Amino acid sequence: MCVGLDSDVSKIPACVKAKFGSANCQYEFNKAIVKATAKYAVAYKINTAFYESEGTQGFEQMALTVRYIKKYYPEIFVIADAKRGDIGNTAEQYAKAFFEKMNFDAVTLSPYMGADAVMPFLKYKGKWAVVLVLTSNKSAEDFETLKVCSEPVGEKTEAEKKSESDYLFERVIKESAKWGDKNNIMFVVGATRPEKLAQIRAIAPDSFLLVPGVGAQGGTVNDVATHGMNDSCGLLVNSSRGIVFAGRDKKFASDAAAKARELAAEMSLFVK
Amino acid sequence: MCVGLDSDVSKIPACVKAKFGSANCQYEFNKAIVKATAKYAVAYKINTAFYESEGTQGFEQMALTVRYIKKYYPEIFVIADAKRGDIGNTAEQYAKAFFEKMNFDAVTLSPYMGADAVMPFLKYKGKWAVVLVLTSNKSAEDFETLKVCSEPVGEKTEAEKKSESDYLFERVIKESAKWGDKNNIMFVVGATRPEKLAQIRAIAPDSFLLVPGVGAQGGTVNDVATHGMNDSCGLLVNSSRGIVFAGRDKKFASDAAAKARELAAEMSLFVK
Repeated sequence: MCVGLDSDVSKIPACVKAKFGSANCQYEFNKAIVKATAKYAVAYKINTAFYESEGTQGFEQMALTVRYIKKYYPEIFVIADAKRGDIGNTAEQYAKAFFEKMNFDAVTLSPYMGADAVMPFLKYKGKWAVVLVLTSNKSAEDFETLKVCSEPVGEKTEAEKKSESDYLFERVIKESAKWGDKNNIMFVVGATRPEKLAQIRAIAPDSFLLVPGVGAQGGTVNDVATHGMNDSCGLLVNSSRGIVFAGRDKKFASDAAAKARELAAEMSLFVK
Repeated sequence: MCVGLDSDVSKIPACVKAKFGSANCQYEFNKAIVKATAKYAVAYKINTAFYESEGTQGFEQMALTVRYIKKYYPEIFVIADAKRGDIGNTAEQYAKAFFEKMNFDAVTLSPYMGADAVMPFLKYKGKWAVVLVLTSNKSAEDFETLKVCSEPVGEKTEAEKKSESDYLFERVIKESAKWGDKNNIMFVVGATRPEKLAQIRAIAPDSFLLVPGVGAQGGTVNDVATHGMNDSCGLLVNSSRGIVFAGRDKKFASDAAAKARELAAEMSLFVK
């Protein structure tokens, strides 16, 4: 289980804001949530947007949160859910930001611009690129699930074209095999599309899948486990709002712990 | 002309670092570059990666740079080259970060995740979403130039399939017409692919195109103007490294100004 620290200031309990001020409340809230949930989690995912939206102060609280987790829970994997993606010289700068300046273990990346956007992250030994494949949102269908085919259309037999045609998200997985391997690339697949999980598992049998969308977005552990597990589990199932904002009063940390324990227990039923 | 403030600390002249310290050198460098080039530029593009890679201090210098430009050159358009793209509730946070916390006029966005990643930015009146269409890097060909076809493949006539098949980058333009219009969406098209510019101009005759890749990446003003202009110009041609790092010693600002003047003069030859 991965806990998503989508620490929206407008949802942080009033008691935390009152005690620490709104300028430090994200970091203090995160510390309390991590302390309460660390025994149930193997990973934390920090959504950069919720920190950038607070300006420089928010960016600093993100950096402090990573430092805190890495200091007190060094065995826990920390993902920057940043969905970056740019040309090579720029991607190098993002890799520096997330892997050197901050000590993240992994960064989520958008594949639209191709290999250039991912390769610089793979130069860091022991770090991971987490490539978007099929996301949990409704408009994933705008482009991710389009059929792509080798061009030119019409010069091949139907059988040839069928064998070469993929959904875009499948092509992303196949293409990424040229960039790295199961030890430095994992894929984002939304829990809201369990029917596609089996299809993805067939193309990437050994890869880790980061699966957001359980809980607030409507995905279920049962569906994800049934369609997405491999022999060594191979899943990092994320819940954000469902855990961290389980409670909004003084008991927020124990409410989050209860929710995390519940979800971890549900997941453990599926692990052989 | 748009000047790209890709203010890589490792390339900032030693004299700037010596005078202001490396912790403030990006902001001080940017101020000097903006003062020297503002009379030739209609826009500045700030590449967020080069600031995030310096950590919280870098993030602050980015925010200060926007504030400086907006205060002293309020008529100049300022673009966050951030290439963000996430689900709706997260995209809202990015919009808040770039449009509210910092006073950017526009943000570049990756379309991979579809409408959800773009719509929240369009709620801000007078602000722009700049959607990646066909980028300047080599691996743009990994996905952006794939043919997409309506599924299921094989159940339509060849003529029908041809009329429905597009390149992915064309589909992005067509789909985005459902999200906004020429007054709040512009498109990124790399200068390194002039042969495709005319094709894009045919689909988006009235849209502004942000064209990076002139200079260091190899694109030319002549090619871009020939294939990409519309009746009201419709182009924002960006040069980053070619201008801001034209000189590396004490004359860096006047060297940048000379390069900016030269490029602006070259562009003016094409404006009716």
